[in-house]
Amino acid sequence: MRLLGVEDGSFEPHKFQRRGSTVLCMVLMEDFYLKRVALRLIEVDGLDATEKLLSVARGMLPLTAIILGGITFAGFNIIDPIAVYEEIRVPVIIVTDEKPDNEAVLNALRKHFTDWKRRYEVFEKLAKVSPIYEAKLNPKEKNPTYIEIVGMDFQKALEILRKITIRGRMPEPVRVADKIAKAVSKALLSAQDQRLNV
Amino acid sequence: MRLLGVEDGSFEPHKFQRRGSTVLCMVLMEDFYLKRVALRLIEVDGLDATEKLLSVARGMLPLTAIILGGITFAGFNIIDPIAVYEEIRVPVIIVTDEKPDNEAVLNALRKHFTDWKRRYEVFEKLAKVSPIYEAKLNPKEKNPTYIEIVGMDFQKALEILRKITIRGRMPEPVRVADKIAKAVSKALLSAQDQRLNV
Repeated sequence: MRLLGVEDGSFEPHKFQRRGSTVLCMVLMEDFYLKRVALRLIEVDGLDATEKLLSVARGMLPLTAIILGGITFAGFNIIDPIAVYEEIRVPVIIVTDEKPDNEAVLNALRKHFTDWKRRYEVFEKLAKVSPIYEAKLNPKEKNPTYIEIVGMDFQKALEILRKITIRGRMPEPVRVADKIAKAVSKALLSAQDQRLNV
Repeated sequence: MRLLGVEDGSFEPHKFQRRGSTVLCMVLMEDFYLKRVALRLIEVDGLDATEKLLSVARGMLPLTAIILGGITFAGFNIIDPIAVYEEIRVPVIIVTDEKPDNEAVLNALRKHFTDWKRRYEVFEKLAKVSPIYEAKLNPKEKNPTYIEIVGMDFQKALEILRKITIRGRMPEPVRVADKIAKAVSKALLSAQDQRLNV
């Protein structure tokens, strides 16, 4: 199994406007073996996350699946899982520890983005191709993980996810990508902001 | 087993002088489980790596051992394994895939550093407390790994290293720290240099 886990770094929301960038971390794991790590800067609330992921994923083919820790990164920089699947024919699995709430997303997008329609379209497209599944990936955990899938059936995805979830509710490629992304943004990006006087 | 693996990012040597910084990556693994990732900027050819490592390691105690991928990082920024052991009483294991050559080090230090004595002292102190062991950590590999140890006996260190080396000649905490450090320096530090016009 070659799985690409994707998570983002944190960023410091500025008081009056959100800007700057944070990191998108992509981790290639063969089962539990960390094979490769790739990082790209993505803009806070930008529109570049899908393309950044695709450019990295193309260099890591073949992939069993891409596992996203949600579909919004760096604020509302959305990764379009259907576009990714259509481009490189790799199944995309989205895992979250809170139930996705499209109504709340729509309200937030409408309030803050003039191009809210374009962004919300991704959520609508995804809702059309995948239900929101609830499943326990780790028997030791009380709460379920929420799962959406593009390009693979639920039983197959569940089998993969259960094999690679060992602590908590997140599968290893996403958990490891998150650890790295948060360490990078904590250590480097805030220091960079200061030095650049952003 | 709680092991802290340490490796550095790459840096671009400038034509006429070496300066700037790269990243020191420290990875806490419990056996094969990646528990924490910490990053610190260290100066190329600076003297801050020992203190940066200590500040992170103190927050990760208790540790079974610290495993360094060599003792020079970011050029000749030296981590003093004896100072680390004396400060926090955690054994330090140094692993390299080339045989350490103190004579070559001494020549390089003399040529490039006015404070070469201070830097070379670390190599001399280490040579007094530890032989350079040669051992195969992975039966599939043709070549040995070179090992120096402070604060632990060889048999114990070898047992630990063999348990956590699965591919190649480097134990997992060092291999994973290296993957992360190289990804960080590749994606972020050269971009930063450009923007800062360093």
